[in-house]
Amino acid sequence: MSQAVASMGLIVVGAAGRMGQSLIRTIDEIDGVHLAGAIERTGSDALGRDAGVLAGLGPNGVTVTDDALPVFAQADGVLDFTAPAASLEFADLAAQARIVHVIGTTGMSESDEPRLKAASRHARIVKSGNMSLGVNLMSVLVRDAARALAAADWDIEVLEMHHRHKVDAPSGTALLLGEAAAEGRGIDLATHSVRVRDGHTGAREEGSIGFATLRGGSVVGEHTVMLATEGETIELSHKATDRSIFARGAVRAALWAWPQKPGYYSMLDVLGLAGRD
Amino acid sequence: MSQAVASMGLIVVGAAGRMGQSLIRTIDEIDGVHLAGAIERTGSDALGRDAGVLAGLGPNGVTVTDDALPVFAQADGVLDFTAPAASLEFADLAAQARIVHVIGTTGMSESDEPRLKAASRHARIVKSGNMSLGVNLMSVLVRDAARALAAADWDIEVLEMHHRHKVDAPSGTALLLGEAAAEGRGIDLATHSVRVRDGHTGAREEGSIGFATLRGGSVVGEHTVMLATEGETIELSHKATDRSIFARGAVRAALWAWPQKPGYYSMLDVLGLAGRD
Amino acid sequence: MSQAVASMGLIVVGAAGRMGQSLIRTIDEIDGVHLAGAIERTGSDALGRDAGVLAGLGPNGVTVTDDALPVFAQADGVLDFTAPAASLEFADLAAQARIVHVIGTTGMSESDEPRLKAASRHARIVKSGNMSLGVNLMSVLVRDAARALAAADWDIEVLEMHHRHKVDAPSGTALLLGEAAAEGRGIDLATHSVRVRDGHTGAREEGSIGFATLRGGSVVGEHTVMLATEGETIELSHKATDRSIFARGAVRAALWAWPQKPGYYSMLDVLGLAGRD
Amino acid sequence: MSQAVASMGLIVVGAAGRMGQSLIRTIDEIDGVHLAGAIERTGSDALGRDAGVLAGLGPNGVTVTDDALPVFAQADGVLDFTAPAASLEFADLAAQARIVHVIGTTGMSESDEPRLKAASRHARIVKSGNMSLGVNLMSVLVRDAARALAAADWDIEVLEMHHRHKVDAPSGTALLLGEAAAEGRGIDLATHSVRVRDGHTGAREEGSIGFATLRGGSVVGEHTVMLATEGETIELSHKATDRSIFARGAVRAALWAWPQKPGYYSMLDVLGLAGRD
Repeated sequence: MSQAVASMGLIVVGAAGRMGQSLIRTIDEIDGVHLAGAIERTGSDALGRDAGVLAGLGPNGVTVTDDALPVFAQADGVLDFTAPAASLEFADLAAQARIVHVIGTTGMSESDEPRLKAASRHARIVKSGNMSLGVNLMSVLVRDAARALAAADWDIEVLEMHHRHKVDAPSGTALLLGEAAAEGRGIDLATHSVRVRDGHTGAREEGSIGFATLRGGSVVGEHTVMLATEGETIELSHKATDRSIFARGAVRAALWAWPQKPGYYSMLDVLGLAGRD
Repeated sequence: MSQAVASMGLIVVGAAGRMGQSLIRTIDEIDGVHLAGAIERTGSDALGRDAGVLAGLGPNGVTVTDDALPVFAQADGVLDFTAPAASLEFADLAAQARIVHVIGTTGMSESDEPRLKAASRHARIVKSGNMSLGVNLMSVLVRDAARALAAADWDIEVLEMHHRHKVDAPSGTALLLGEAAAEGRGIDLATHSVRVRDGHTGAREEGSIGFATLRGGSVVGEHTVMLATEGETIELSHKATDRSIFARGAVRAALWAWPQKPGYYSMLDVLGLAGRD
Repeated sequence: MSQAVASMGLIVVGAAGRMGQSLIRTIDEIDGVHLAGAIERTGSDALGRDAGVLAGLGPNGVTVTDDALPVFAQADGVLDFTAPAASLEFADLAAQARIVHVIGTTGMSESDEPRLKAASRHARIVKSGNMSLGVNLMSVLVRDAARALAAADWDIEVLEMHHRHKVDAPSGTALLLGEAAAEGRGIDLATHSVRVRDGHTGAREEGSIGFATLRGGSVVGEHTVMLATEGETIELSHKATDRSIFARGAVRAALWAWPQKPGYYSMLDVLGLAGRD
Repeated sequence: MSQAVASMGLIVVGAAGRMGQSLIRTIDEIDGVHLAGAIERTGSDALGRDAGVLAGLGPNGVTVTDDALPVFAQADGVLDFTAPAASLEFADLAAQARIVHVIGTTGMSESDEPRLKAASRHARIVKSGNMSLGVNLMSVLVRDAARALAAADWDIEVLEMHHRHKVDAPSGTALLLGEAAAEGRGIDLATHSVRVRDGHTGAREEGSIGFATLRGGSVVGEHTVMLATEGETIELSHKATDRSIFARGAVRAALWAWPQKPGYYSMLDVLGLAGRD
């Protein structure tokens, strides 16, 4: 934890949850940021407790509170993996305080966009359904590769492996990568994907995108996109070994957004890869 | 090609077929063996032609013939990837000539065994459904690994990739490796295999063996068996990049069998891995 | 081989060489192109022979000649993996004939550029030191990934494997990929690369690019660039299983260039990835 | 944690150290074992504290003590990753108590063997320099593969990757795997290993064992042994994603040894792979 002149003060909302605690620990590990506040909803058992202790660190003097406004007024940014309704309110507060708002909240809908866009006139909002830098970068690389290589010659396959407890297949990230490939080719994924191969399948259909799923052990998440043609294969892989990568990505997003103008950004902006279509 | 004192003279039966030609080229490449005869069935267009020219090499002075007996009498071994009925006759001839008979013929049945066993009183027979040294070795390693690691803790997955023209899934080799894993665990593969994962699958069932299939490009054949548990994964992989590995394995088998006593052998004997159950 | 209305007629220069024969076979395999001429230097044994027979195909009626001019006048493009001096002359002829000239010749120097550029006022020239589509694409992806991910957090490693006969390390392609990574980071590769690790190395130096080399078997060429940070790793790999990929890339380049305006192009243009810096 | 009839009571010695805490947490996670005692050296700050709290779990009622004898008398086994002198004393105590003693202590010397062997007349001792089940299994598979495949045809390469903080290369486990390969081939590793490839290396020397090292990110440990020949490659890999695998292996060893006769065992016995040379 660094609190030097250049250190960015970050608030964690939903501080007592699993993701909130991961954010508090990650802020503690990364240079250039410090914990400036910890918010929980009214009625939470965590109110009044020390946020460091809560996250399994030593005491850090930041007390969990449900009174967000004064905390926002003193901070540079907020990291938010809560719920849609809460995130909309935090966006309004971030706009008032003219700070950075990193939103990793899932389940937000199209109808939430106008309010977030309005808030982004004063706040610097970075929003993404997946805060991992690696997955976001890989999706751009997959799209670019699929665009460059002719579908008539190159076959695309998406392989993923996760731990034995995962209950659905393919993973959301595998589908996201399949969508990136489909976008690169200008096709619809749903009508071009092959999700099952067993028994007499016939030869591979030109232009299709295949999925395959492995399950076992405690694998956090491995995804590979292959592009294979006569005599050569390209593979793009992402391996996550620690769930903290989402917290790390959120902190990176906050640091990136700090010197930006107010606006509504994505992880592709953070990676410097936006607007290249 | 070497014809020094120690060189083993090998006959190729089915010399004009795709596999026969591959065998002729492989004999030409490997030290310690030379082509001692080339047999085709009566009526073949190839009869009377030079076997080297037929295989895309220069002329080698070995003329394709359908008169096997005198050729067997002058040779040390025969490489045979023909058909069950022909292979049984060649086994009888190999027994008469007391030479090595390497049988890679597929589709042989249980009822062929007594005749082969009888022939093996005088011939040294090596028979396998897959002549690749690598695949045979890997199946032993998979069996041993599956035996050593408790099914309650370790999840087994079998992944394979083949070229876009392959029409069935999983591959025969993937199933062979799955059988090796099941044998190591003392379970029946059919009732423990998971061949499809799509949609809501639920958590992985303890003790199951999963299969996943990739198709693309010109991949000759890649197989991986994973054993995954909490915090660690073992992977055993075999990658074939050239179909000549079956011809190479057959030549290796012949060289191994040359100094052996008459008997009925498998590729596990060739690898020195037989009889370790 | 297709000779329909839309088929592009291609000349192979250096037709009797190993690469020339590979080009003739590849043209035979790919739809939309046909062999329109086969050129060898004056004095070659191959002059007057049938180009198809020379390449191990059946006769195709194209006779190898050293009289290039009339052949160029009747063709749409020329595939050229010869030598610098010859390639410069072929560029002049391609300009006269206003056709496509694909140059995979290695060893050309800076001083050759003006003459090629002059020729490209009338010819459509595509020139690259590596005609594999996959390697060219991968180098762009590596550059983009290295640019997007901060050197302070992400470590870059380049791994390559080649067959046992390769006499130098790391491979030229590994260095090319290292250069792409260095370009993405805006650093000099030579002063940031770690080529050897053995014994007490100390911790990894921030911002360095590591190389590792494997040798074995008959591996045509495998290259992997890893970008690793706390909790996640991205891998970009290229696997070549067949040396024909360079011939295939040249044919693809010719087909791409056919409808273009005269100009001087690279494989990045062919991939639609040029001018994105 | 299970304390049913069949539960094995385990003591952790060195309970306050990093490995001791990991052992306490692992015992808590695995069915069929429970924490029966926690020992620290006289003078340790941890004496008198609750072992569960010490390890970051809730209180479990086991108090850390330096009085080992009465604790050993009430337990079924002891897990020991301490120091050579301490481990010898614990072996004597385990012999007196006639319980299981799992020794993962490093740095023990040949001269310690007689005392351990003496203790093993009454204790069931399992001792290994690496308690990971996966690494131990892999070393056996590597040895068997190297033995089965002729050195003249098959090239062996050992690749490892570890996090950016590792200060030596190759890793101890990479060398252990190289030793296993050398043992399989009946050669001396030191005179057959190639540890560096850079610049003009010449062709690969037959029978050599190559090493390559990657460093980056937070990779806990990945090791791959490749056996490559003309047209095919076998790869054996081990990937550790969590340092708890050593604690898990120790618990597995204890459970395996519980019903055994007194004796001196290795992890190969635990895996059922001993005595197969």
